Amino acid sequence: MTPTPPPLRVGMIGYAFMGVAHSHAWRTAPRFFDLPLTPELTVLAGRDPAALSAAADRLGWAGTETDWHRVLERTDVDLVDICTPGDTHAEIAIAALEAGKHVLCEKPLANSVAEAEAMAAAAERAAASGVRAMVGFTYRRVPAVTLARKLVADGRLGTIRHVRAQYLQDWIADPAAPMSWRLQKDKAGSGALGDIGAHIVDLTQFITGQRLTGVSALLETFVKKRPLPASTGTLGGVAGEGMGEVTVDDAAVFLGRFTEGALATFEATRFALGRKNAIRIEVNGSAGSLAFDFEDMNVLHFYDGADPAETAGFRRIVVTEPEHPYVGAWWPAGHGLGYEHGFTHQVVDLVAALAAGEQPTPSFADGLQVQRVLDAVERSAADRSTWTPIEGES
Amino acid sequence: MTPTPPPLRVGMIGYAFMGVAHSHAWRTAPRFFDLPLTPELTVLAGRDPAALSAAADRLGWAGTETDWHRVLERTDVDLVDICTPGDTHAEIAIAALEAGKHVLCEKPLANSVAEAEAMAAAAERAAASGVRAMVGFTYRRVPAVTLARKLVADGRLGTIRHVRAQYLQDWIADPAAPMSWRLQKDKAGSGALGDIGAHIVDLTQFITGQRLTGVSALLETFVKKRPLPASTGTLGGVAGEGMGEVTVDDAAVFLGRFTEGALATFEATRFALGRKNAIRIEVNGSAGSLAFDFEDMNVLHFYDGADPAETAGFRRIVVTEPEHPYVGAWWPAGHGLGYEHGFTHQVVDLVAALAAGEQPTPSFADGLQVQRVLDAVERSAADRSTWTPIEGES
Amino acid sequence: MTPTPPPLRVGMIGYAFMGVAHSHAWRTAPRFFDLPLTPELTVLAGRDPAALSAAADRLGWAGTETDWHRVLERTDVDLVDICTPGDTHAEIAIAALEAGKHVLCEKPLANSVAEAEAMAAAAERAAASGVRAMVGFTYRRVPAVTLARKLVADGRLGTIRHVRAQYLQDWIADPAAPMSWRLQKDKAGSGALGDIGAHIVDLTQFITGQRLTGVSALLETFVKKRPLPASTGTLGGVAGEGMGEVTVDDAAVFLGRFTEGALATFEATRFALGRKNAIRIEVNGSAGSLAFDFEDMNVLHFYDGADPAETAGFRRIVVTEPEHPYVGAWWPAGHGLGYEHGFTHQVVDLVAALAAGEQPTPSFADGLQVQRVLDAVERSAADRSTWTPIEGES
Amino acid sequence: MTPTPPPLRVGMIGYAFMGVAHSHAWRTAPRFFDLPLTPELTVLAGRDPAALSAAADRLGWAGTETDWHRVLERTDVDLVDICTPGDTHAEIAIAALEAGKHVLCEKPLANSVAEAEAMAAAAERAAASGVRAMVGFTYRRVPAVTLARKLVADGRLGTIRHVRAQYLQDWIADPAAPMSWRLQKDKAGSGALGDIGAHIVDLTQFITGQRLTGVSALLETFVKKRPLPASTGTLGGVAGEGMGEVTVDDAAVFLGRFTEGALATFEATRFALGRKNAIRIEVNGSAGSLAFDFEDMNVLHFYDGADPAETAGFRRIVVTEPEHPYVGAWWPAGHGLGYEHGFTHQVVDLVAALAAGEQPTPSFADGLQVQRVLDAVERSAADRSTWTPIEGES
Repeated sequence: MTPTPPPLRVGMIGYAFMGVAHSHAWRTAPRFFDLPLTPELTVLAGRDPAALSAAADRLGWAGTETDWHRVLERTDVDLVDICTPGDTHAEIAIAALEAGKHVLCEKPLANSVAEAEAMAAAAERAAASGVRAMVGFTYRRVPAVTLARKLVADGRLGTIRHVRAQYLQDWIADPAAPMSWRLQKDKAGSGALGDIGAHIVDLTQFITGQRLTGVSALLETFVKKRPLPASTGTLGGVAGEGMGEVTVDDAAVFLGRFTEGALATFEATRFALGRKNAIRIEVNGSAGSLAFDFEDMNVLHFYDGADPAETAGFRRIVVTEPEHPYVGAWWPAGHGLGYEHGFTHQVVDLVAALAAGEQPTPSFADGLQVQRVLDAVERSAADRSTWTPIEGES
Repeated sequence: MTPTPPPLRVGMIGYAFMGVAHSHAWRTAPRFFDLPLTPELTVLAGRDPAALSAAADRLGWAGTETDWHRVLERTDVDLVDICTPGDTHAEIAIAALEAGKHVLCEKPLANSVAEAEAMAAAAERAAASGVRAMVGFTYRRVPAVTLARKLVADGRLGTIRHVRAQYLQDWIADPAAPMSWRLQKDKAGSGALGDIGAHIVDLTQFITGQRLTGVSALLETFVKKRPLPASTGTLGGVAGEGMGEVTVDDAAVFLGRFTEGALATFEATRFALGRKNAIRIEVNGSAGSLAFDFEDMNVLHFYDGADPAETAGFRRIVVTEPEHPYVGAWWPAGHGLGYEHGFTHQVVDLVAALAAGEQPTPSFADGLQVQRVLDAVERSAADRSTWTPIEGES
Repeated sequence: MTPTPPPLRVGMIGYAFMGVAHSHAWRTAPRFFDLPLTPELTVLAGRDPAALSAAADRLGWAGTETDWHRVLERTDVDLVDICTPGDTHAEIAIAALEAGKHVLCEKPLANSVAEAEAMAAAAERAAASGVRAMVGFTYRRVPAVTLARKLVADGRLGTIRHVRAQYLQDWIADPAAPMSWRLQKDKAGSGALGDIGAHIVDLTQFITGQRLTGVSALLETFVKKRPLPASTGTLGGVAGEGMGEVTVDDAAVFLGRFTEGALATFEATRFALGRKNAIRIEVNGSAGSLAFDFEDMNVLHFYDGADPAETAGFRRIVVTEPEHPYVGAWWPAGHGLGYEHGFTHQVVDLVAALAAGEQPTPSFADGLQVQRVLDAVERSAADRSTWTPIEGES
Repeated sequence: MTPTPPPLRVGMIGYAFMGVAHSHAWRTAPRFFDLPLTPELTVLAGRDPAALSAAADRLGWAGTETDWHRVLERTDVDLVDICTPGDTHAEIAIAALEAGKHVLCEKPLANSVAEAEAMAAAAERAAASGVRAMVGFTYRRVPAVTLARKLVADGRLGTIRHVRAQYLQDWIADPAAPMSWRLQKDKAGSGALGDIGAHIVDLTQFITGQRLTGVSALLETFVKKRPLPASTGTLGGVAGEGMGEVTVDDAAVFLGRFTEGALATFEATRFALGRKNAIRIEVNGSAGSLAFDFEDMNVLHFYDGADPAETAGFRRIVVTEPEHPYVGAWWPAGHGLGYEHGFTHQVVDLVAALAAGEQPTPSFADGLQVQRVLDAVERSAADRSTWTPIEGES
């Protein structure tokens, strides 16, 4: 009989949407995968004691803390999982790393390049003593996306010529949709750009194995004032009646160029009526092409330029075979996975890296680089769309 | 400079839907293909002189005849193209063949097996003196279908295990849709079965290169009485007011088995709300699979069982490459064809066979065999769906 | 603060594919749904002590029993969850009900009508004292399927005219795939028919709210002998070398008719190369049509006959809105669910029915009726496909 | 009996790809549509007498001229149809208009803004005496595109927020593909930008009923030298061996903004491996959304924001109903059209405008405006992607 692997004791901060997804992943990963460490849901942190206690019960956390600093002080916590809004990431993550805790931080890494730089520096310092930091771009771990990356890495696409990436939502297309913290620059950093644009920047860089070297951009706020929700609880200082000002972008479009010369178009919007969570990525290379749409997340389309013309065509690969990334641990072929599986796979890869003493990916440095792209987008948009190089990329 | 090929002088009988399509094909084929004979639209026959004259002008026919017998007597007619309802096919076709005219006859070949047998016998007699007969199953000449047949013939599917075929329309799904000759057994022979079921019987036999050996069937008339149209012109003796009785099937479903053992399901209906002309055919073999849907007629889906699991998937072949059947004569890759191109390809193949002194396909014998399948379907449906072998197939 | 609901203590028998899925559902349901009872994973039963212990650890069960009878004797078990092969369902389920335990039994209910009748009778007796039995047709709880049922129940389809249902897999399309218990009649009862055909019989009856009244069928075993696996462990008395005889069907095709007159075609096969778990269901009614394919499980296609012709078309409904069945408990719109969510929804509905003292559906009587359909299919196939009424349906 | 409408005598210059398509349209339009003028294929012009004569025979032209000036002098020519490369458009079109001939000119209108301005001025002068000029953006007349424009004009999309347009081909993705006049700036003006980018600029402006006000762009030539074809005939002064320099763009990507504020992304490329002629256009508005892909040209996807959430979804409209633009003249519902039908519809609309003494659209002024967009793209790309307003648009 296999002995139970040693524990990995987790303290999680925040329990909204992302907290629910992370909790599910911590609970579920060891049920389907052979992990070298056994995750334990040790402590959940939040500010409202009653809501926190209910959340801990519901999500399966053994204890609670109403002050996140306490989580960092606890000796029974090995890893801090940060699921709070972006304006708090830097402070918590740096403190956690300095306290010797591994860190998993939700994306985007931070609300500014300066914060992200501080975090990446902290991560680099911590790494010297074996303390690891990872940023949570979970869509990398959708099996079809991971397979896309593998096909590129295997040379099946040849030289990349074109990348087109869209992240389309519609949840505020209605001008009557109310204000929220996600529409306030001081809380959210940016709008569609940072919330969803960050994902397609990361995904295209991950799949191609290249980085963006520059961008040319437009940002737009279509609806500039929105009704305040009845309760001000979630909006900080914003008054609970009348209209509030939207201080972030509703949509971002930008051109880009990748390291080896590919042209790229990007679009992130919350105004694409009828598209709910459509992450659409296409890559054309000299030897093959790929297409992915999260609305059909178990499928990857692959065109193999080596096929003879008579029978060449995009192959609709149902990415549920044992030969495909992560899938063998789940169900038989054809039994598709869902949104939350990416989080479970993230836990699997993080735990494996920690046990091996290796750097999990994407690192804080990776998260910083994405932040630099977002920053360049904002600067280009503010300067007549002028081509704006990404700092650190030649 | 190439001399103009000798003429092929055509007399066409009937000028409704099929007559329009055939006229377009006769006019268009020599503009895009190098034909060994030059079609001439010599004479058009119909009963109503004014309508006939207008049709001949519109469709490009040089002369007219109000009695089809006169077309057969004319010495300047080489081929008779029969586009009338099924109850007249046998008489006209047999007379034309006996008059030494080649015959192209619209499908279904006839309204009964007896008629079809007489036609096939006449065709065989005529062939002895080089006079040819062909039945118009034009969907065989949709490039994606022709490619499907080629892939099977090339062995890319291995042993055929399954065939599923549907021909779905909805033009009488509304019980208020009026009576027409297509709903009368004495005119149309049968309903959905003969009108559209005949096509999928022919197509599946063509693609697989095999024949149906038996069937088990259900027929249904969902709407048994329908309002008569105001004018009785198109309905023969049916009175122009009140309700008329539908005497054909609205839908047919049947099971079948092919020569080499494959199982098949067939469905032909005019009650599939939302499907306008959906001819859907799938074939699964031991080495590959195919799927086709006429609603996306320029595409063939092909699964190659030889592909490694990591990148296996149905290939969406856009059948518009020079390497694909018929396509090179038209437009550059990606510029799709439409419904009427099948008729033009039929002319191309027919003319080529005539010039070569060969039997064009599908022959009247092929049309007779389809008629026998339809007959077996009707007999099975009338006898508790009992398995009913197809006459002449072991 | 809400008090924790009273427990529902579960004993599960079997821990292969279905046991893994059920365990996940028992663990996960209370994390996302407000349940009136709190499932507890009390005891897991199996025969091999070492494997059983490892499975209990992996799947989260508190205790183990190597004899399933012991589970029924335990006073700390409220419900028995049967995840064993079909030949054991009747004995275990009847004993459990007689022991006063609620029962959740995997499908198909049994390997024969006689067994299923005994089970349904036992369920009816048990119900008198508030003990409930349910059979696990989980695909009913895929949100798109549940929505389909709702649209029919709401009258959006009008009178049903056509049902076409296919369950297509390909895992034994290769003749070299080895023997398994699923290919032995004494263990599995039937092949594709009972394993996957049962699902589409249940699903179409569930969606339409009608029952099949008769069938006409063909069964086929394409590959009659298969290599035995090296170990005989999973195959009972079958010797571990040479070839073994396949004693079940590889594929089943049948016609059917529903209570209110709709025509139906069914196909269940493990030989549809390239289709991994394609459950495809289409329903055409006088007012609307539906189409579903499990390969794209978060989508339901709906054609509304009331739309004006200019803008009528099948609507691709991404079934991930709060307005859709079950979905509100999970993620934001557009974040799709996977295969296992149906099992979680099954737990949700079962627990709700138990807490309310109501009969959960599908009942054992429902399972028996499906068994009668399967039996009629086998009898028709054995009798020249002759139309065979379903016992108990007029 | 209707008298034959008066003739419209056409002289066409050029008989390559576009000439073949135009000839088909002139021949076919009067066979399916009731035209107020009867097109006559009077004279075809080209330089090589033998090839010209063969083309005239094949395409159905009554006479030939080896000097295009002669066509303009002929009194039996009412309209000049220009199907030559773009560098000759201005000279021929201006001369024809000054000779009092109506003009249909293939797109793009010219190779430079200066030429296009001269042409638009000539067209305006000619219009004063009832002589008309039209530029051939035929994709406007694909029924699904025309329907898209109608839905926007009817207000079904509300305020337009986003436009995304791609024209993807792959015919020179292979670096070994040879040089041609289309890759030479002096002949073709530009590469993918003018050849196919012009189409999506026109289509998005047509569908939205708005104009682009500015752009930010990148151009790229991926393969800078290509093998010369053996014969120099088609390449002017380029030597017939060794490598030739590609002097146009291989791909263009640009951002744009429409009159009423919508954000847009555009991409035109000949390097999207696996995409043959994929014109993909999506429009998101406050009330609805549209999606079109020429690879499935008979379909328009429409999302109606007014649909309740339970059954909202993109409607797959098969644009083949009598209620749809142009379609009633062709076949029954569900019988799709092909690429060339757009040219036939162009003839129909042009002839109707000429007979009515009205300006056909798109006019030369419209063509000039597209040219100005292309010019702005080139200037932005040459100036660090800086935002470049379109001349004449506020």
